[in-house]
Amino acid sequence: MSSDPLVIFTPSGKRGNFPVGTPILTAARQLGVDLDSVCGGRGICSKCQITPSYGEFPKHGVTVSEDALSDWNAVEQRYDDKRGLTKGRRLGCQATVQGDVVIDVPAESQVHKQVVRKRAEVRDITLNSTVQLAYVEVEEPDMHKPSGDLERLITALKASTGFAEIEIDTHLLRPLQPILRKGGWKVTAALHQDHKAQTPRIIALWPGYFEGPLYGLAVDLGSTTIAGHLCNLATGEVVASSGLMNPQIRFGEDLMSRVSYAMMNKGGDLEMTEAVREGLNQLVIDIAKDAEVDPAHILDAVFVMNPVMHHLFLGIDPFELGQAPFALATSDALSLAASELGLTIAPGTRAYLLPCIAGHVGADAAGVALSEAPDKSEDLALVVDVGTNAEILLGDKNGVLACSSPTGPAFEGAQISAGQRAAPGAIERVEIDPATKEPRFRVIGCELWSDEEGFATAVADTGITGICGSGIIEVIAEMRIAGIVDASGLIGSAEQTGSARCFLDGRTNSYTLWEGDADQKPITVTNGDIRAIQMAKAALYSGARLLMDKRGVTEVDRVVLAGAFGAHISAKHAMVLGMIPDCPLEKVTSAGNAAGTGARIALLNKDARNSIETLVRKIEKIETAVEPRFQEHFVNASALPNSADPFPILREVVTLPEVSFNTGGGEGASGGRRRRRRG
Amino acid sequence: MSSDPLVIFTPSGKRGNFPVGTPILTAARQLGVDLDSVCGGRGICSKCQITPSYGEFPKHGVTVSEDALSDWNAVEQRYDDKRGLTKGRRLGCQATVQGDVVIDVPAESQVHKQVVRKRAEVRDITLNSTVQLAYVEVEEPDMHKPSGDLERLITALKASTGFAEIEIDTHLLRPLQPILRKGGWKVTAALHQDHKAQTPRIIALWPGYFEGPLYGLAVDLGSTTIAGHLCNLATGEVVASSGLMNPQIRFGEDLMSRVSYAMMNKGGDLEMTEAVREGLNQLVIDIAKDAEVDPAHILDAVFVMNPVMHHLFLGIDPFELGQAPFALATSDALSLAASELGLTIAPGTRAYLLPCIAGHVGADAAGVALSEAPDKSEDLALVVDVGTNAEILLGDKNGVLACSSPTGPAFEGAQISAGQRAAPGAIERVEIDPATKEPRFRVIGCELWSDEEGFATAVADTGITGICGSGIIEVIAEMRIAGIVDASGLIGSAEQTGSARCFLDGRTNSYTLWEGDADQKPITVTNGDIRAIQMAKAALYSGARLLMDKRGVTEVDRVVLAGAFGAHISAKHAMVLGMIPDCPLEKVTSAGNAAGTGARIALLNKDARNSIETLVRKIEKIETAVEPRFQEHFVNASALPNSADPFPILREVVTLPEVSFNTGGGEGASGGRRRRRRG
Repeated sequence: MSSDPLVIFTPSGKRGNFPVGTPILTAARQLGVDLDSVCGGRGICSKCQITPSYGEFPKHGVTVSEDALSDWNAVEQRYDDKRGLTKGRRLGCQATVQGDVVIDVPAESQVHKQVVRKRAEVRDITLNSTVQLAYVEVEEPDMHKPSGDLERLITALKASTGFAEIEIDTHLLRPLQPILRKGGWKVTAALHQDHKAQTPRIIALWPGYFEGPLYGLAVDLGSTTIAGHLCNLATGEVVASSGLMNPQIRFGEDLMSRVSYAMMNKGGDLEMTEAVREGLNQLVIDIAKDAEVDPAHILDAVFVMNPVMHHLFLGIDPFELGQAPFALATSDALSLAASELGLTIAPGTRAYLLPCIAGHVGADAAGVALSEAPDKSEDLALVVDVGTNAEILLGDKNGVLACSSPTGPAFEGAQISAGQRAAPGAIERVEIDPATKEPRFRVIGCELWSDEEGFATAVADTGITGICGSGIIEVIAEMRIAGIVDASGLIGSAEQTGSARCFLDGRTNSYTLWEGDADQKPITVTNGDIRAIQMAKAALYSGARLLMDKRGVTEVDRVVLAGAFGAHISAKHAMVLGMIPDCPLEKVTSAGNAAGTGARIALLNKDARNSIETLVRKIEKIETAVEPRFQEHFVNASALPNSADPFPILREVVTLPEVSFNTGGGEGASGGRRRRRRG
Repeated sequence: MSSDPLVIFTPSGKRGNFPVGTPILTAARQLGVDLDSVCGGRGICSKCQITPSYGEFPKHGVTVSEDALSDWNAVEQRYDDKRGLTKGRRLGCQATVQGDVVIDVPAESQVHKQVVRKRAEVRDITLNSTVQLAYVEVEEPDMHKPSGDLERLITALKASTGFAEIEIDTHLLRPLQPILRKGGWKVTAALHQDHKAQTPRIIALWPGYFEGPLYGLAVDLGSTTIAGHLCNLATGEVVASSGLMNPQIRFGEDLMSRVSYAMMNKGGDLEMTEAVREGLNQLVIDIAKDAEVDPAHILDAVFVMNPVMHHLFLGIDPFELGQAPFALATSDALSLAASELGLTIAPGTRAYLLPCIAGHVGADAAGVALSEAPDKSEDLALVVDVGTNAEILLGDKNGVLACSSPTGPAFEGAQISAGQRAAPGAIERVEIDPATKEPRFRVIGCELWSDEEGFATAVADTGITGICGSGIIEVIAEMRIAGIVDASGLIGSAEQTGSARCFLDGRTNSYTLWEGDADQKPITVTNGDIRAIQMAKAALYSGARLLMDKRGVTEVDRVVLAGAFGAHISAKHAMVLGMIPDCPLEKVTSAGNAAGTGARIALLNKDARNSIETLVRKIEKIETAVEPRFQEHFVNASALPNSADPFPILREVVTLPEVSFNTGGGEGASGGRRRRRRG
């Protein structure tokens, strides 16, 4: 048995015997305890703060005396005088073992600390950045032992970090000598080591001691919007978020029109590549300014996007994605120098692109999978990222399936007669009285319902301008509950419904949601609007249903709605329409921008990059275009909610009148031609 | 004992038993026999040609029957019809083992064949390029098994080459899909794997089967001249050589004036970086055109250069090289993408820079070390690369020392009153009759001696314009042998020498080498010229002498003169001047542009890159500037040949008159101030 003092670390519980005089940092490193240090034990960085505990510890079987650590020393005193050391704390590199001791490593001193995520059902993020800082003192040049300044820097960094090999970015060869001399042969290097543990590289260098923090950018590169989060890589904190319109919009609103633009215009794809890269460079400028962060301190970046954006961002013509077999140029994750992507941020910045799952299921879906982790779910989860193309994941810890389904832009208010983007003035919530068939509604930008006092005054500024995506879901679902629309999607006439709000509008009926006023036209829901939503939701549902077939189930335990649209949608109304499978309403949750969250996770924790790459390889991919049952599911799903699936759970909470307005000559949606739209 | 047939390969002698039906290529691969194949055994590339031998082989203990191999097949027939197969040859991938057989692998079918070097004393080069071609058939995309085209290409390449991991250059992501489709899913990839065996990378891609050859560029980036050799990487053959003036000359003739330019002009170093890179890009264009080679097929490049050129080429300010302690920014070898060096050759091209030995001993000296291999020498070799700065290596297989010595530009004809660069009209050879003191000489561009009939007519075009570097060595040495110059370097007067060619020229005497004519001034050798040469040769000799001290020897077994100047110098005359240590004259050899040869070796054989990196780390570096004995050696070496070292071997073949022209008031060179000139 060793007679050396016993050192016990909490919360890890790691323990070992160390000779008297061993610094706590040294003991921690030897035991593999997660204790931070940038300066390698020189008493400069103060990252290795620890809290010794004294007294009796029956649990650990030790008694810690007051003199278990060395006395407070001059380095600690100097640090305390300059910066202030929290009471009870010591610097792990200065305090040495004198007797048995229990050492608590506070969260701030852990490299791999946890970032708490707000939603209860998701896991916290463990910090594990690809970038670390290391402060070193470099041997000065000596004519008698000639070696390059770089070689001596690398020698010092190897000793400090324990890495066996270290490389340097070529762009640093030029500033290397001035930085070393400005720092008096003391420098701080940012080392990047990717998740595949390749040789670490020096990607940035500062004279003297540079405390950080360093930042990383998580980007959701959407067809419409580019959204970025700037994160502190040491704390995980989001210090700024910024978004801008994707400048590619000038080449086409949706993805297929951009693919067409590239096909019709020689070099068109490169124009779009340049546009999106310019947009990203602008985003970096904006977000750095917003957060008052030096762009030179942004040294990592993670990107998620759909396959077309993925290819255009990489400078690859998306031509092949516009036609079967929808072949991706590359599907695996990519680790590149940001400069290779034309990004003009700090020259050492790295860019990581999550893998694409399939030709229609992109890195954005991989981001959703990383954030929502269906592969770690105990119950069977259906995760739907609703956009103009819906990406659908179904799975639990036994396996995950994925597909994409061409919902088209109806859910975003396009193809709807009174549709509009979610903006002030747009109707977003609707209720219809089943007895009177009279509606009431709320518009974005106003807390009042339309039948409440002061509503007219409150909306005077914005007006009532149209119906946004979530509003159209609600109004049609409410029409279905109120018996204004039948299961086939037909709106009844005034006579059939007993409501003057129903009127003949061409060959079919429409419903007046708002009568209009002196300034604005009435807002109606046409049978065409219902047809458009039927198409979109049938596509979504039949994609989900196909995955359920493959999995051999007829129901799911829970549904996660991802994407901005998912955040606003009412679970009940979505289910009345049969957008999502039958399921207890409280089991339908919203994940917000899960793709962006996935990017943030991959940014903060490089192990998550290995996880998602492994998961994506294991996901079973279903191509809906070639699945024979897709068409059958689609036809069934055209009904409201469905002509084949009974939706028993829904029917326990909502009564759906058994009306039928088909007069024989009408045009039900169930025979509507199937569109194939991607984008 | 196996009953399978025995297959014996020559010249390797490798042997093994293989089941009937095994292709010879497969047998070769399993035994590690060096048999080339680009197409992986598809009968397309014909690189795996072998010659079976039939009959009795008592040496191997086998009898090979006529049916030891399978019959000539359709693939071989097709190849023979199209291209013609040498009689007796078979395709190793088609011919299968049927019985015991002896297989000769001809040199053309070996990847690692030898390139024979002309000089007897040096080793041949074993071919082992960083770049290899691989032809593969790629699985087509399948909607049911979505994966990127790249991932399927890599899968095929892994199977064909046996590499566990393969990466791709980012620039190929864009052309990847069109190339795969143009080739009908058959492509040829160029894979680069450096000498450190890092993950191989696809650096170029061609649709269908691309036969090669691929080329590489070996560049000696001199202060004055940039010289390049374009080599076929599969045969080692130099297909074209080209040289151009270093465009940096406009910023300063010698290196120190360029360092000064960078110090005096903000951004001056970057101007020079741009100039040299432009020069290199021009060289590539010239040499590719000259050889009628597609620049896209030049995929490797190796560079040697002195430290100042090294830094300027890399875009590093050479400021630190201009002052003690002469710190290199980086000394180790560098493997980079050529594009990182601003080179606009094929985007996948790799660039390898040999390591620098010390602040004054550059990658060019490393090239000399690689070419001349003093570390492998049985006897003690002194290798001198003579330029404006002499790099000196001394060693044998027990160890190598290196230093640099500031000879200045006198050996190149600068600082000499009648000096000029080696060009037509320059005096290059001189003889002086010791009795009459009358000279005769030859000029560049004319085979006749000046006392031969027809000389005047022959040189009428060029004239007699001056003395080049080797000419000045000869004339001074001849003057010393003829008793016109004494050991201290003083020219005697007409009275002292008995020759009217000696005349008082200011405070010292000069010697008339040529009287001039109507068109041209006389050509004389002044005492100042002799002083300049004394300085230069003393620097060179004392550097060598210092290494000999360190090694504890007073003589060397042989001397190798590298560099263009070394190729023209007369060993006897150099030794009379005491430029090089005493040694049998036949042991003084010229290595030509050994630095450039070293670049070519590193280009053709990646193992040589490991060798030189290892050697450079082991070389003992001596900084002459801080060696106390350098001054003493320098003073001794100022005499002709030397005031301390006796040169007994030289004196056996040459008589040096014991004359002295010091009249007491003269200024001997031995007290001349020591200059420190670098460049």
